[in-house]
Formats: sequence, C-alpha cells, structure tokens
Amino acid sequence: MIAILKQNASPERTQMLIDWLKRQGLGVHVSQGEFSTVLGLIGDTSKVDIDMLTSLDIIEKVMRVSEPFKAVNRKFHPDDTVVKVNDSVSIGGGHFGMIAGPCSVECCEQIVYVAQRVKAAGANILRGGAFKPRTSPYDFQGLGAEGIELLKEARKQTGLPIITEIMDIRSIELFEDVDVIQVGARNTQNFDLLRELGKTNKPILLKRGLAGTIKELLMSAEYIIASGNENVILCERGIRTYESAYTRNTLDLSAVPVLKELTHLPVVVDPSHATGRASLVPSMAMAAAAAGADGLMIEVHNDPIHALSDGAQSLTPDAFDDLARRVFKLREALV
Amino acid sequence: MIAILKQNASPERTQMLIDWLKRQGLGVHVSQGEFSTVLGLIGDTSKVDIDMLTSLDIIEKVMRVSEPFKAVNRKFHPDDTVVKVNDSVSIGGGHFGMIAGPCSVECCEQIVYVAQRVKAAGANILRGGAFKPRTSPYDFQGLGAEGIELLKEARKQTGLPIITEIMDIRSIELFEDVDVIQVGARNTQNFDLLRELGKTNKPILLKRGLAGTIKELLMSAEYIIASGNENVILCERGIRTYESAYTRNTLDLSAVPVLKELTHLPVVVDPSHATGRASLVPSMAMAAAAAGADGLMIEVHNDPIHALSDGAQSLTPDAFDDLARRVFKLREALV
Amino acid sequence: MIAILKQNASPERTQMLIDWLKRQGLGVHVSQGEFSTVLGLIGDTSKVDIDMLTSLDIIEKVMRVSEPFKAVNRKFHPDDTVVKVNDSVSIGGGHFGMIAGPCSVECCEQIVYVAQRVKAAGANILRGGAFKPRTSPYDFQGLGAEGIELLKEARKQTGLPIITEIMDIRSIELFEDVDVIQVGARNTQNFDLLRELGKTNKPILLKRGLAGTIKELLMSAEYIIASGNENVILCERGIRTYESAYTRNTLDLSAVPVLKELTHLPVVVDPSHATGRASLVPSMAMAAAAAGADGLMIEVHNDPIHALSDGAQSLTPDAFDDLARRVFKLREALV
Amino acid sequence: MIAILKQNASPERTQMLIDWLKRQGLGVHVSQGEFSTVLGLIGDTSKVDIDMLTSLDIIEKVMRVSEPFKAVNRKFHPDDTVVKVNDSVSIGGGHFGMIAGPCSVECCEQIVYVAQRVKAAGANILRGGAFKPRTSPYDFQGLGAEGIELLKEARKQTGLPIITEIMDIRSIELFEDVDVIQVGARNTQNFDLLRELGKTNKPILLKRGLAGTIKELLMSAEYIIASGNENVILCERGIRTYESAYTRNTLDLSAVPVLKELTHLPVVVDPSHATGRASLVPSMAMAAAAAGADGLMIEVHNDPIHALSDGAQSLTPDAFDDLARRVFKLREALV
Repeated sequence: MIAILKQNASPERTQMLIDWLKRQGLGVHVSQGEFSTVLGLIGDTSKVDIDMLTSLDIIEKVMRVSEPFKAVNRKFHPDDTVVKVNDSVSIGGGHFGMIAGPCSVECCEQIVYVAQRVKAAGANILRGGAFKPRTSPYDFQGLGAEGIELLKEARKQTGLPIITEIMDIRSIELFEDVDVIQVGARNTQNFDLLRELGKTNKPILLKRGLAGTIKELLMSAEYIIASGNENVILCERGIRTYESAYTRNTLDLSAVPVLKELTHLPVVVDPSHATGRASLVPSMAMAAAAAGADGLMIEVHNDPIHALSDGAQSLTPDAFDDLARRVFKLREALV
Repeated sequence: MIAILKQNASPERTQMLIDWLKRQGLGVHVSQGEFSTVLGLIGDTSKVDIDMLTSLDIIEKVMRVSEPFKAVNRKFHPDDTVVKVNDSVSIGGGHFGMIAGPCSVECCEQIVYVAQRVKAAGANILRGGAFKPRTSPYDFQGLGAEGIELLKEARKQTGLPIITEIMDIRSIELFEDVDVIQVGARNTQNFDLLRELGKTNKPILLKRGLAGTIKELLMSAEYIIASGNENVILCERGIRTYESAYTRNTLDLSAVPVLKELTHLPVVVDPSHATGRASLVPSMAMAAAAAGADGLMIEVHNDPIHALSDGAQSLTPDAFDDLARRVFKLREALV
Repeated sequence: MIAILKQNASPERTQMLIDWLKRQGLGVHVSQGEFSTVLGLIGDTSKVDIDMLTSLDIIEKVMRVSEPFKAVNRKFHPDDTVVKVNDSVSIGGGHFGMIAGPCSVECCEQIVYVAQRVKAAGANILRGGAFKPRTSPYDFQGLGAEGIELLKEARKQTGLPIITEIMDIRSIELFEDVDVIQVGARNTQNFDLLRELGKTNKPILLKRGLAGTIKELLMSAEYIIASGNENVILCERGIRTYESAYTRNTLDLSAVPVLKELTHLPVVVDPSHATGRASLVPSMAMAAAAAGADGLMIEVHNDPIHALSDGAQSLTPDAFDDLARRVFKLREALV
Repeated sequence: MIAILKQNASPERTQMLIDWLKRQGLGVHVSQGEFSTVLGLIGDTSKVDIDMLTSLDIIEKVMRVSEPFKAVNRKFHPDDTVVKVNDSVSIGGGHFGMIAGPCSVECCEQIVYVAQRVKAAGANILRGGAFKPRTSPYDFQGLGAEGIELLKEARKQTGLPIITEIMDIRSIELFEDVDVIQVGARNTQNFDLLRELGKTNKPILLKRGLAGTIKELLMSAEYIIASGNENVILCERGIRTYESAYTRNTLDLSAVPVLKELTHLPVVVDPSHATGRASLVPSMAMAAAAAGADGLMIEVHNDPIHALSDGAQSLTPDAFDDLARRVFKLREALV
C-alpha cells in the first residue's frame, strides 16, 4: 500500500502517522519526492481501512499495491476452483455449466416441460425464479416456496440439479434442498445475507451488482468464503451504463478474462438479463463462450402469453436447441 | 401506456394481444401509422408488467405515459408531506432537517461530545452508524447493538432525535426506540426489508441506490408506503459515474428539483458520502440548500485518529459550526 | 413519432400545435387517454427536431417510433453493405477485415517489419498512427505527414492496404493516397470533418465516441453518407463506464448484434484500445468474432522499449500469429 | 510518479527500466515490498508517457503523484486568474459572469430583443449559437456567419460583449471580432482546434466534454495555454450518466469546488444544457452560485414557436428576470 502525503504535511504529524502505522504491525518505507513524500506500507495491508487512512488531513492519496482480497485471489491459489454441483455436474476447471430455464416458475407443466427441453438440448442445470426481485411492488413477485417445490418436481423428473434466487435472509431454510443458491444483482452487497450463506456448504452463484465493480464482486465473494463456504461461482450479468436505448444493461465480457486472471473461482455469464432482448442472446452467449466463460445462464420459456410469443426476451426451447448446439461446437473449436 | 407493434405484426396476433389487454381491464386505442401500429392503453396501467409486455414478439417498444408510482406521486397528492420525527422536529413542507454526527459510533464520549457540538451549531437530528456496510469483510463493521445504546445515551443528554442505519431485516426490533431508521444505498432495493419497514410507523430515511435511478428510488419508497408506512424521507447521496478521480460519487443535485416535481415526499442531501472529501462538503451542502433540499446529512467527527486529523472526510465540529451558520443564512436569503 | 401532452394542456394550445405539425407535412392522430392526450405523428418525422418539440410547454414527452436515421437504416437497405478497400480486400457481407499494426508509426524498419509479420499471420489491412490524439500536449503527437509516407512504404513492400487516423480537417489532402481513413473516438461528432469526408469516396472507418451511444454512431455515419460517401465501416472500441480499475474502457460487444440489426454497414471491433491491456486482447478478439463482427483491429508492436517488453499493451507479432490462427479457426466453426 | 513492478519482474529487466528512466532525466527511488517492488520517480514527470510505461510487461501499475497539468495548476499559480472580456466585464477572482441568450440566433429582432431583456435583468455577456453541432445531419445547423453578424448588431445596440461557439477550425477568422469564443462539449478534445485557439489572445470558454473527466478538461485547457493563450474559462455543463429519464445530463456541481482547488482558472456553469428542462434551470443555477461558480450560462428565449411556449427548455425573459434577481441576492448572502 502506498500513501502519498500532502505537500504541507508537517514533520511532526508525519511522524505520528508513521508511528501509528507501525503499531498496526506494518513496515513503513519513506521516499522523499520533489513535490511530496511517499510512504510504502509493507506487510498485511488487507486489513487496513483505506477510507479511514484517506480521510487524514495530511494524506493526499492512498493506493493499494496488493489487492484487498485474499481468499479469492489467484495469486495465493493458482489452480482453478471446481465447484461441485452434484455427483455428475461441476463448474470450473474445464467443466462447463449450461444453466437454462424460465425467468419465473409459473406452474408444474411449464417448469417440467422446459426442464425436459433444455436437458435434451444439453443443459446441465435448471434455473427458475421462485422469489422475484421486482422494482415495483405491484408486479408479480414470484410463487415463493411453492415455486421451489415445483423446481424440485422438475428435478425429480429430469435429474437436472436446480438453481434459484434467495432474497430474504429469513427464508434460507427453504433453500436447504436446492442445489445452487443464487444471489441476485440487488443483493450482491447484502453483507448479512452473504455471511449467512457462507455458513452453509451450498454452491452459491453470486451475480455482479447492478452497477457493481469487479472488485466489489470479488470482495462479496470474499465475504462468503471468509464465513466458511468456498463454493462460489461468479456471474457477469451486465452493468449499468448510459447506453440503454438498445440493451437493458451493457454486458461487460472483458470481466471474464479479468476475473480469470484475478481469481480462481469459476465465472459464468448471463446474457439474457444483460441484454434484455432475445435477439441478442445467441450472439452474446457465443461471445461469452469464446471469451473463456465457465458457463452460461440462459432464459428459456415455452409460451409466455398463450401462444402470443414465439420469440420473446426468453429464448424458445427451439432457439435454445440451436444455440446450445452452436456453443458446444464453438467450445470444441477453442480447444 | 403506449405499445408500439413491430412492422410485421400479423393482424391475428395483434387482435389476440388487444383482447388479452382488454381482459386485464384496460381500454385500447389503435392508431395505424405509416411504419407501425401504436396501441394506447387506457385505465390503471400501474399494474401492467412492462417487461412482460415488451417481451412479446410482436412488440417493438412499450412506453409508460403515466408513471408507475402512485402513492408517492405528487399528481395525486399535491401537498408536501411533512414527516414528523418527534414532537419538535419535522422534515418537509418548509421544515429543514439538519442531520449531523459521526460516520460510526465509536464510544460514549465521542458520540455525546459530537452530539453536543452539532446541537449547539443548529443540528436538529443526530446521526451515527451502529451497523456499517463495508465492502470488505475485514473492515470494521460497527459496534452493532451497543452503538444504538450509545446513540440513545447521546439523545438523553442532548434531546436530539437519532437516526441510524439498518442492514439486517432480522435486527429490526433493535431499532424500536430509534427515531428515524436509515436504509442505506446498498439496501435501496432490498425489497423484503422495505416491506418490513412499511409495517412500522417509524420515519424511514431511504437513500438512493449506489447507481440507482430516480425512478427506482421512488418505486422503493412506493414499497414502504404500499406496506402501510407513509413516513418516508428520500435522500440523494451521489451516484456512480465514470468520474471517480476527484470525488467518490457524483452528487446529482438536479435530483432535488426533479424529485420535488415528481413526489410530495421530503428530499434531503448527503454531501459527505457523495463527495468523500471534507473539503468539498461545505460547497455541496450550500448548493443542496440552494437547490431546494429539505435537509442535509453531514458527517461530523471530533478526532479521527488521536489528533492526527483536523480536516478529514468528516467535518470537524468547528467546520460544521461555520457551515451550519452559512446554510441558515443562505436559507434566509432564499425566502 | 409520439408526442404526449401535459395534463393541463389547454384545447387552444393543443390545436395550435396540431395545426403547426400539419403545416410541417405530418399527419396527426389524436388519442385521448385518462391522464393525458397522445398525438401520433405520421409521415417523414426524421426531420422533426425532437429537442425543439420537447421544449414546448404543453409537451410532457416526445418519443420516436421510427429511428431518426435513414441512409444507414437496414429497414430501407436490407442487404449488407460490402466496403471495398482495394481490388482484393473488402469488409462486410461475409468479408472479414483483419486490421493489424502498431499504435504509432515510429520508423521505417518498425512499420515494414510489423507489416510483414501481420501479413504472414493473415492480416489483410495495415494500421498505424501518424497523427495521434493525446490527452496531454506534452505527449508524443505522432510523426504526422512523415508517418503516412512510411505507411505507404510498408504498403509498397507488402501489398497491404493501409488505414490511418485523421484529426485535422485541414490535412485531408495528405490522406489522398491512404486506403481507409479512420475517424477516432474524439472526432466521432466532429460534424464538419464528417461532412468533408462525405465528399470523398474513400472508405471511412468511424469509431464510436468515447462515451457515444449507438444512435450517435449511426447518426454520425448518416452525416458521411448524406454528404455522398457510402463507404462507411463502423467500429466498436469500448465505452466509458464507472469500471476503470481493470480495463481502460468497457468493450460493448452487444453493440455488434445491435448494429447488425439496425444497419447494413459493416461493424469491426477494436479490443486493443477498449481494454488497454494486451492480456485481455485475445479473449476479447475471439469474443468479437463469435459475436458476429465483420473484422478486428488489433495493435501489434515488435519491441516497445528496446527489449524491455515482450508482452505489452500491443500484442507481439508472435502473440498475433497465435491469435489470428485461433480467430480464423473460430470463424470456420461458426459457419 | 510511482511505478509498481510485477512480482515476477526479473532483476535484469528491472535494472534496464531504471537505467532507461534515469536517461530520461528522472531520479529513481526503489522500495522493496513484500509482494512487489515500487519505483518512485522524481523530477519532471509531466512529460512521461504513462500509457507507454504502463504497457511494459514488468509493470503492474503506474500512478501519478503530481498531476500531469502545469500551466493550469493552482499549485504553481495560487492566485485566481481573472479573464478580461472587455473593458468593463471580467470573469474570475470575484467577478461574476452572467451569460445569457438564446440557444440559436434566429433573426435580428429576436437576438436584439433578448439581448435587451437579459441586459436589463443583469446579464453582462450575450450568448447565441451561430454554428450549431447537431447529432442529426437533418436538423437545423445554425445561421453560420450571418448569425455572428446578428450577434454583433445586438452588441452594438446593447453594449453587451458576445460569446458564440466555434466548430470548424477553418472558420476561425470569422470569430475575430467575437469577444469570447466557445468550444463546445463535442470539441473539448479537438486538439488541433485547441492549439489554434491558443495562438489567439481571445478569451476561450472551454466546455467539459460530453463524458469528459475533470482531468481531461484541465488537460485541454493546458493545450490552449501551452500554445500561448492564458484566457481560458472552464465550463461545467453536465456529464453523461445512466440517469437520463428526467435530465438530459447529470450536472456535476462538485466539479466546481474540485476545479477551484486544482486550478486558478475561472469556472462557470451551464445548467440549461445540463438539465435540458427549463423547470430545473433556476434550482441548478442557484445551486451553482452557492457552490462557488464564477458565472452562469443560461439559455433565454422569447417565443420558441409563435406563442406556443411560455415555459420551454429556455427560460423566458420574465423567468430570467426573476432568476437573476435571486442569484444576485444569493451571492450577497454568501459574502
């Protein structure tokens, strides 16, 4: 960690700061520049509160040299983490997670039918929302506990492990028999929830925040691991930018190679929520696979409003068939 | 609500959509344009799920004409809401909330001393963090329940009502004797928490999300009111933009007049978190008051690290004295 | 085009507006909603000044139904445009442009060597900066006219057509013998320059603005075509977002399928400038190809500072060899 | 300047880099940390090309300690610059510039009438667009040279100095008799234009880029001053963010105190373009004045479309009367 002092920092205060830092167990190297003094802090700086340090009146700027994350850091764990979903499905380290299913679980026929179709196309995990975070209190909020039961029924009939999103920390026991628990973009920094999930041993799919940085995503993963659960899958799902006329969010695919450099955790991509438009999903799914993602999360729906739609925000089962075939072919060409 | 159909929408599917909309209780006006057909939906469209409608394959675009929020909407409640904090302090409708205090409650001496100083300067509400949302699991997370007790002690000694942030929905009973409950930027869309707070009758200070839109802020307030609690104070606290070299966030002061147009709820501004730098707080506090804010929320701290700092991210009590005097003088000139 | 009137719009003013619109040659359909009146404008609305209309005091909102661009619009020109660079190289309609070369032209040996290497790897266009837009007046500004001469020499020796960036409208005659003229991100909305380039018949590679929208990119292309030159290649090169810790810009790959839907013009991707880091370029180049881009623009450099670097922001010729081979293999798998 | 080396940087390459830096005339301090080596570069680093340095394969990160701007830097010129517009009007150092007028010059009556009205209200500079940068080639592009003549006529009749925007570097001689030349947001990084304006001795009002950083604005001012012209006025005019539903851009008022700290140049604020809505202009103008701006730039128009509008994007002369009175009263209260 580097701390740059203000030009007018007095020698007395500078010495007080150095003494205080040494009492925190850090080594301090002082470089006197032409315009400013630079302190190099050596030792375990991951626990230094950078905001607090920055707030001191003799400090111009504080910059980390080493990253503030440890458990997720590839520097300390060079090998890819492989998250085991069930006896036959894993994600990471060469194992590709093809997660597909409807945005919301609506009824038993729907979820079982979609599960059968996506399984036939090559998906190995079934997704479906039971608790839905909706901007408006007047929008459909999901089937709740019943939705989870329907997912289990679909699992029973197809053998696909299931993933669904948790919103309320108090409902955690409802997820006991779910294979992967999803933390949505609005809860990426719900730290109490992360800590609680860290006490389970379930695979957790952690989505990047609505306007979250890569570092924040890693720090949130750090919360889960620091609480005891190492089974974390990261998910890029688009970020909020000024460009919103043609896509709901901007899918940040460069996050994939960046994350693969910084962390050993698997990284999957959700092109459906990122783009918000079915016509863009196939291109972005292919691009994500080409960028090196460890998996995809795709919305597939049979029949949104009684035959009104065959090409909605979600892919149809037929469109998913086609996309899955192309993704698998692309992955073969990458080897 | 306006729905624009795709050029190639077949007459059959168009009719199916119109019939379905009418079954939802809406009136439908059809305009045939040169390049597309436009449906005007009339009636209570606040419950129409815009995402679902957009997802239909015959739809090009859906746009709301009337806003999706109702309870917070000034159109239906033209008069300013006045939120009563205690018998002598209110916010809104001409009542100015001067909220001040330390970022975190650290110990009894600190919080009582700061409370006395800010009260003397003209503050009418004491702030202080007991539960702190921190990006890193290794940073100080606040004193928790003990912090709330210390705030109450400061209230006892000064008479100032207190505000502090809730993070975990399970700790809600700890806030029973707090005067105003704060929802932080990371929980603005923690919908279960909002619903639960809507069941209390406490004043809620709801911060805009880290990268939240004005509409999302209003919809989150709508969650609280729809659950039964009308005592909501909105808080602009800076948004995430590309400009991060000199300010932590970009304080969006135009949100103040925009919100005053859209809603009857009071709007306060937090320049401390927005800018992240004490030297910018006074200018931005003055600007917020000039823009028409109903209150300010300012961090004031006595002595961050044992005398090392006299001009930190938080203002010192002396700097707050000066700022408060200038804000009150400015407000007089505005009349 | 849809114009929504304010609730309090008087019948007289509404009628004045309708009359004025009709005098502009537009048809006007009036729909009376519960909360507002909606005008549907029919006819050639591409010349209606949306800002001016929005500014009227009886108007709540104006929304375009049909896009404001015409010449670039795929609706009116369904077939892909193929831009011919020279007798053997084209971009678009299945022709892939592999553009490679150094950021700046430095000397004859350098540019000829790099040209030979990238040609051997499969590149079909040579890039190299002669005029360099630099944020600081103290940074190297390029070799200027001499740089263009060196590019021509490299073309002579390898047969590769050349592309280089124009900055100053007054230097346009220096580009007479250049094969493709590049308009950089800082000049995407330099409308006088665009108009002047529209008077030539050169292929123009038009980069998206630093924080430009997709629509602005298309409107800038419209400037060039409206002035008479249809040989426009669009280039996605990353947009400015809050995420700047690990990438210089955020490469917006979803712009590729969006643009392919909206326009018939070819779309290439520059992963080098977008990411700013060589280690990310191969993943993003592969992703761009998988997303359907019509070409790539890659920085390749031999020896940045006398042997100090073998893995810089630019790829080395060896790394480009490897990447080009993988891109071509990927493209075969896509067929 | 601080350069942090990668963990695996070999001693030989590190030494090569140090030698190379010393040959550039810099002193180099080496600090050996636990995880990395840090080089402190001492001397005139403003000419070091940070991108080139960052691109070296042994470099992890490069960070500036001292800012890359010199001529605009308050550290080296502590006193406020006062830009003299004419014999009676100046901006900066306590002199407030109240710039007002229509977006576009339309005809003689209009510009003279508006000039008379804004002068009566207290404006001391007349604005009016002659050359208009428009996103669409089909929108009105301004009256051009004739517009400048009309502005001069208005100056003759009122005595107000005039400001108008330059777009094309080739038209610079048309601006010889203009009092202040404006560089618009789309040309903030048109470096050839900046250099050319630096050869004049005219006051230049330089707007922040559409999505420009504060540093970029200062570096563009540096271009003008480095070419010989110190009469630069900076203008905050809103930045592009994700929040575009209710305001055109996000006015970044914290840029005012930030700029006042970093530079000695005067800073004015344009709330009209930033917000895009007349109803927000007065609040934001007041806020800008309270934040410490050295001036305001306000659009005032008499009669947008023949009596259709009395409350448009531009203020009416009556609304400007009222606003100017309130701004002057506010400024008195600030003293």
